[in-house]
Amino acid sequence: MAQRIGNLMSVRDDIKVLDATLRDGGLCNDFRFSDDFVRSLYKTNIKSGVDYMEFGYKADPDLFDVSEYGPWKFCREEDIRAIVGDNVSDMKISVMADVGRCNFRRDFVPKSESVIDMVRVACYIHQIPAAIEMIEHFHELGYETTCNIMAISQVSGNQIEEALTMLAASPVDVIYLVDSYGSLYPENASALAKTYLDAAEKAGKKVGFHAHNNQNLAFANTIDTLSRGVSFLDATVQGMGRGAGNCAMELLLGFLKNPKYNLYSLLAFIEQYMIPLRASGVVWGYDLQYMFTGQLNRHPREAMSFTAKGRGDYCEFYKELLENE
Amino acid sequence: MAQRIGNLMSVRDDIKVLDATLRDGGLCNDFRFSDDFVRSLYKTNIKSGVDYMEFGYKADPDLFDVSEYGPWKFCREEDIRAIVGDNVSDMKISVMADVGRCNFRRDFVPKSESVIDMVRVACYIHQIPAAIEMIEHFHELGYETTCNIMAISQVSGNQIEEALTMLAASPVDVIYLVDSYGSLYPENASALAKTYLDAAEKAGKKVGFHAHNNQNLAFANTIDTLSRGVSFLDATVQGMGRGAGNCAMELLLGFLKNPKYNLYSLLAFIEQYMIPLRASGVVWGYDLQYMFTGQLNRHPREAMSFTAKGRGDYCEFYKELLENE
Repeated sequence: MAQRIGNLMSVRDDIKVLDATLRDGGLCNDFRFSDDFVRSLYKTNIKSGVDYMEFGYKADPDLFDVSEYGPWKFCREEDIRAIVGDNVSDMKISVMADVGRCNFRRDFVPKSESVIDMVRVACYIHQIPAAIEMIEHFHELGYETTCNIMAISQVSGNQIEEALTMLAASPVDVIYLVDSYGSLYPENASALAKTYLDAAEKAGKKVGFHAHNNQNLAFANTIDTLSRGVSFLDATVQGMGRGAGNCAMELLLGFLKNPKYNLYSLLAFIEQYMIPLRASGVVWGYDLQYMFTGQLNRHPREAMSFTAKGRGDYCEFYKELLENE
Repeated sequence: MAQRIGNLMSVRDDIKVLDATLRDGGLCNDFRFSDDFVRSLYKTNIKSGVDYMEFGYKADPDLFDVSEYGPWKFCREEDIRAIVGDNVSDMKISVMADVGRCNFRRDFVPKSESVIDMVRVACYIHQIPAAIEMIEHFHELGYETTCNIMAISQVSGNQIEEALTMLAASPVDVIYLVDSYGSLYPENASALAKTYLDAAEKAGKKVGFHAHNNQNLAFANTIDTLSRGVSFLDATVQGMGRGAGNCAMELLLGFLKNPKYNLYSLLAFIEQYMIPLRASGVVWGYDLQYMFTGQLNRHPREAMSFTAKGRGDYCEFYKELLENE
């Protein structure tokens, strides 16, 4: 069994909290956040002691129609600077680049000219070689990098070992365990984290965890993997994220013992921005349809469609899922 | 660190699932469930493989006005029999008796004359002697018994050891760890479970766990303590219970590997009864105000009042809590 690092009273200086509200939450509203929302979230994250704020995706505008999305699907340098200026703060800025959905050679300037600190490369397991090519490029440009291997609950142990070996030999800084389907239990998540940590630490790299809340375990999995040595922790305000959402930042900040993390600033943001956002009709969070796909270890797309249609016939939906196993 | 019993694929024949929807959920609607609801829940629990169904409290009608509550605050023998007849099923029936709120010598008939199988005695730590007196009485009457020590997160380790020693010497069958404030993390809950198990197993007794969802950890804590050897697991349909509610039965049944547990029957009940119950205005479940009291390890009463008043000023409420620390 994986041992724990520290205890419930420890301050772990290696912990880095990453706010992914605009990025994973943006999947709920096509990245249409008001400038006021984004600016306030930026200030809130700084006050709350958040270590990294992810502004969104760096999607290829040749592949996605810019008129159909808010700016945070593309994260142009000037759009980020319009919010943060030169980011005169201790908080770092990240963006996500998906393998195959990003023109990474064209759309990234050298780090010396950018306000972005870290590029997170998201891929499926078969895309690891493509991810490493991107990581090498971003590393040469001077960025911190992560590799976020998605949908890990459907990958065999052998493949994970192979991917970790390749990443250990790459210049990537952080390897992320990503529970895209929200199907991991803390016991699975911790065992996987141990595998990641064993490979990463030998190569001087860190491990991160990105949770989904399909089985209401996003926070539990996050604090269990962190207790095993995972140090990069993704969270979003009120868990805002695709489908069942993510680990809630307010739960995570309330758990962490380092006094640099401050819950109160976040509460003011929730009251002023998140409650109205929900009231305006943006939908996310744990519900039965996501529990089903989490329990069945499946992509949440059918549950998202069930939600979007406003359906409430859970039994019928469950039978549909079983028929399509 | 506490070791785990079995693994994620194991069938644990010692596991007993207890549905506390009427009892803990009854705290949300003054126990006013329709007979149709109760009868359908009874049938559903049998089909779902639930091991015990708790019908409510056995409160003293001299202390509580029977006109102000539904029947399940009092659980008269004839009211239970009106639902279950002689309970010709493999599922057992329990009721809860609170120390100091129950006329236990008058209001319980011998087990041979009752459809009730188990009496769960709930108490605070200082009431253990009174609880043991009740347990001895119920044991003499022929009932299975549990002792549910509430608000354990505010009790010192020494007191817990003393209480467990006393209970180990009593005729009680099951000792329950109860996270009344929802303030335990899985790491705490498991450490406490280990303490309970060490004391209980030597005396041939079982350990149970009753979770609250203030920090969205009710399910996580339940499956973590069960993996350490806890065998009596409380859950409620959709987590219906006081304040932030409890461990959701649908999450628990989805987790357990014993094929006797059946999720689909429960879904039909949720669709037909629980969704309308919520729509009718009965309120429970995780929300920020309960997260605060969970994080602060406090009784949820102020959060319940905040909810009842329909307040949304989370910041102001948080400050009030801090002022009254």
